[in-house]
Amino acid sequence: MRLALLGCGLLGGSAAAAWRDARVVSEVVAFDRDSAACAEAMRLGIADRIAATPAEAVREADLVLLAVPVGAMGEVMAACTDALPGHAWITDVGSTKGSVIAAARRALGAALPRFVPGHPIAGGELPGVVHASARLFDRKLFIATPTEATSPAALEAVEALWGAAGARVLRMDAAEHDAVFAAVSHLPHLLAFALVARIASEPDGEHKLGFAGAGFRDFTRIAASSPEMWRDVCLANGPAIAAELAGYRALLDELQGALEQGDAARLEAVFGLASRTRRRFGAAFDAE
Amino acid sequence: MRLALLGCGLLGGSAAAAWRDARVVSEVVAFDRDSAACAEAMRLGIADRIAATPAEAVREADLVLLAVPVGAMGEVMAACTDALPGHAWITDVGSTKGSVIAAARRALGAALPRFVPGHPIAGGELPGVVHASARLFDRKLFIATPTEATSPAALEAVEALWGAAGARVLRMDAAEHDAVFAAVSHLPHLLAFALVARIASEPDGEHKLGFAGAGFRDFTRIAASSPEMWRDVCLANGPAIAAELAGYRALLDELQGALEQGDAARLEAVFGLASRTRRRFGAAFDAE
Repeated sequence: MRLALLGCGLLGGSAAAAWRDARVVSEVVAFDRDSAACAEAMRLGIADRIAATPAEAVREADLVLLAVPVGAMGEVMAACTDALPGHAWITDVGSTKGSVIAAARRALGAALPRFVPGHPIAGGELPGVVHASARLFDRKLFIATPTEATSPAALEAVEALWGAAGARVLRMDAAEHDAVFAAVSHLPHLLAFALVARIASEPDGEHKLGFAGAGFRDFTRIAASSPEMWRDVCLANGPAIAAELAGYRALLDELQGALEQGDAARLEAVFGLASRTRRRFGAAFDAE
Repeated sequence: MRLALLGCGLLGGSAAAAWRDARVVSEVVAFDRDSAACAEAMRLGIADRIAATPAEAVREADLVLLAVPVGAMGEVMAACTDALPGHAWITDVGSTKGSVIAAARRALGAALPRFVPGHPIAGGELPGVVHASARLFDRKLFIATPTEATSPAALEAVEALWGAAGARVLRMDAAEHDAVFAAVSHLPHLLAFALVARIASEPDGEHKLGFAGAGFRDFTRIAASSPEMWRDVCLANGPAIAAELAGYRALLDELQGALEQGDAARLEAVFGLASRTRRRFGAAFDAE
């Protein structure tokens, strides 16, 4: 089958490589607005051909992978809709689903039933197609978030494709997906960015950072992530993240009071619940 | 020289082992209110003898290491002051300095000039003397926070001892130390505890945690730390941590507004500053 790869990044490049390895894809036509990423995809043998536009990339495709930042999904969909073959399956790797589905409803028209929105829970610290790997999705989750518009045939076909790429496939409601990832991914990123930004904005921030140890290093590792990507995620999943942040701020308000009143019992109750939970989940995490 | 080790944990046990390896300590008399920790210190060859009380441990000591949790420092000092030989140097490993110095002023009496408060910037995920290592302090910082009461001779002697244990020694004002570590250590611990506690306290918390990935794992690793230890740190360094938390909450208030208003520029400015800073410091961190 012929794949139209829209977005030559870590996730898109890895999916293309995994499908080629699994012999489900025999040709990859790629588009990226960054021509250096296109050249790299060609050099790595991930793409066979570069298209000048999204429409050109999808024209003869059997499968379309939308692997651009979530903020660019709508634009890319709109740019290729008219050229989509009537039989092509469409899927995506966006880390927020409500916004991508809303964009699809606006842009995909008659192709909407053949679009299976999803989110592969995989990645790496190092972005870019240069770090792509056909093994990136091995035993990782792919969360499919079909809507009432998604056709059962498309859902079945696309889930099988992600399975062929190595992923374990799970189905979830898009709103639930967005609430879950606001809590366990989006909010932690925002909090880590905020901590480093606050220290960096102080006159003695550099001095303080000189004393940061292993705990700070782990806590802030995700603060090295792409600001543009996470800005887009925050815009795309704003309401769910805002709700999580509001709840978190309420707990911080309480802890501020406990610190100021020297309320040992309250501090220990919160820290103890966290520590027991994190240790219990630690074994599962570390087994990954 | 004879070492009185008050507190048989990771840091105390490692210091005793390092000094013995460096041949600056020939005998270790240990006290811990937990008899299992004492037995373990004997079994590992870290302690030569167990004392029944802090006073008995220090009676013939040349060097006293206070290696109990910061919340217990005052009590242990008070329990050994009357038995301290007039020539013995005293030092500690407490991660907050203002509170330990205040306790010393109240408890150490005539021995105060021979007390060199300090903080070795070393540790590990795994607590307890069983994980002690003579190499724990190798090339790590030991921050000495002498007061105007500290004698120059004591300062010189104790800094040399920590150097012999492998550490790079730095001098800092205690209040500055407490402000720096409130920012780069204490607040991050509180924030990580709060995040995990909040998710764990929700009805669907377990479900959400099942989807946590590598970013969450890194961000929350420090939330597995000892709740009792961090409760004590928060009580001991309450004002500095409260000041950091207040500043952090103000930034979160701003980010909440930016999320709700879809203020892309404000989000990107904060995330960008954080990302550039963390990447620049990342190389230094990772070289450690």
